[in-house]
Amino acid sequence: MVKNDWGFSTHPLVPGHEIVGVVTEVGSKVEKFKVGDKVGVGCVVGSCQSCDNCANNIENYCPKYILTYGAKYHDGTITYGGYSDFMVADEHFVIRVSDNLPLDGAAPLLCAGITTYSALRYYGLDKPGMHVGVVGLGGLGHVAVKFAKAMGVRVIIISTSPNKKKEAIEHLRADSFLVSRDQDQKQAVVGTMDGIIDTVSAVHPLLPLIALLKSNGKLVMVGAPEKPLELPVFPLLMGKPIT
Amino acid sequence: MVKNDWGFSTHPLVPGHEIVGVVTEVGSKVEKFKVGDKVGVGCVVGSCQSCDNCANNIENYCPKYILTYGAKYHDGTITYGGYSDFMVADEHFVIRVSDNLPLDGAAPLLCAGITTYSALRYYGLDKPGMHVGVVGLGGLGHVAVKFAKAMGVRVIIISTSPNKKKEAIEHLRADSFLVSRDQDQKQAVVGTMDGIIDTVSAVHPLLPLIALLKSNGKLVMVGAPEKPLELPVFPLLMGKPIT
Repeated sequence: MVKNDWGFSTHPLVPGHEIVGVVTEVGSKVEKFKVGDKVGVGCVVGSCQSCDNCANNIENYCPKYILTYGAKYHDGTITYGGYSDFMVADEHFVIRVSDNLPLDGAAPLLCAGITTYSALRYYGLDKPGMHVGVVGLGGLGHVAVKFAKAMGVRVIIISTSPNKKKEAIEHLRADSFLVSRDQDQKQAVVGTMDGIIDTVSAVHPLLPLIALLKSNGKLVMVGAPEKPLELPVFPLLMGKPIT
Repeated sequence: MVKNDWGFSTHPLVPGHEIVGVVTEVGSKVEKFKVGDKVGVGCVVGSCQSCDNCANNIENYCPKYILTYGAKYHDGTITYGGYSDFMVADEHFVIRVSDNLPLDGAAPLLCAGITTYSALRYYGLDKPGMHVGVVGLGGLGHVAVKFAKAMGVRVIIISTSPNKKKEAIEHLRADSFLVSRDQDQKQAVVGTMDGIIDTVSAVHPLLPLIALLKSNGKLVMVGAPEKPLELPVFPLLMGKPIT
């Protein structure tokens, strides 16, 4: 957003959408929080509160959602994100952080965390014994591994960087590590995965990943490439594994 | 296949993979059929019979499946399709046609039928009262409409050809008809569909279709474009309807 990679940044801009802190003041109608509570704010700070999506608690799909920074708030002012000293937020978009969770551990849950947790849960890739790939070991990837392991899933990291193997196995407790350019390693796991969480934001080919899935396996894209990817419909239709 | 649009045709070639007929002879080990039975053969006439996919009755995902025509059979000969006078087939890949179903009505079920039926069922777009779009009203599209209507689904045809409206509504009993280039018509149905069965084989943009879906709606591609489509990940990530 700072570099305007996606083409919709406005300035002045204060980024930050994985926000944690302690409540210092509450409005007279606030019911959920009191001064001193540990709280967080994620990517969205407002929505219409009247559409079907809002009624179903998926305000992130509301056509009028308001991003936490760089967006126009209800009153016409610009929203500013977490790199601020203080923040005012509607309690509906504030999340309680439990007392036994350190604030710095809670922060990444507010975007990277919910993004990967939701992907694992929504697509049913959360069953003990399942085999799930995680592509990329950055902000999203490392949280995906931790959630998947906590769910009892067998996790294989798929990465272009062999030097991340030690961290992946020893620190994050991934079960295995696949260097994506190693054709032999890749061949050995073709057709073995129930799902793949793809966190890569660069444009990249999807067929080599799809080849790693079992039949009816799921490739879930959670990265944010600014350009469209190629969707190779015909090879998928033909059904045979493609490597 | 005749024009080698997909680049893997071999000659001599006898196409045809929606095959119906009457059994004239059976081998000594055949158990499922007898002379005089009405039968059909679809897109696949062989597979390895030993992999997980074969064990799960999804031989169409077997890495060694054998297409009904233009492929190499177990014995090394080339398979020939339905534009033949007679055909020899393994009973495992032969389907019974019930006596009360005319052969000419059964034929299209063997590719267009199973393709669209399977898409509606597998993705749960088969519940009475659901709203499902069908893009394109050719071989696949018209069968999709008939199945969806039989399932109690409310069907909207999405087509570039206004002159297909009469057939769609009066003959196929579709509930409504959307001319895809009519922006006003389109705007009126943004966010209203539980799913879309997209039967178009030409390269075409997906976002205008995705915009017609409800949140968590499903776009199912069953067409066979020879070139990759564009998968616009970023607009999907942002979540707001795009038209």
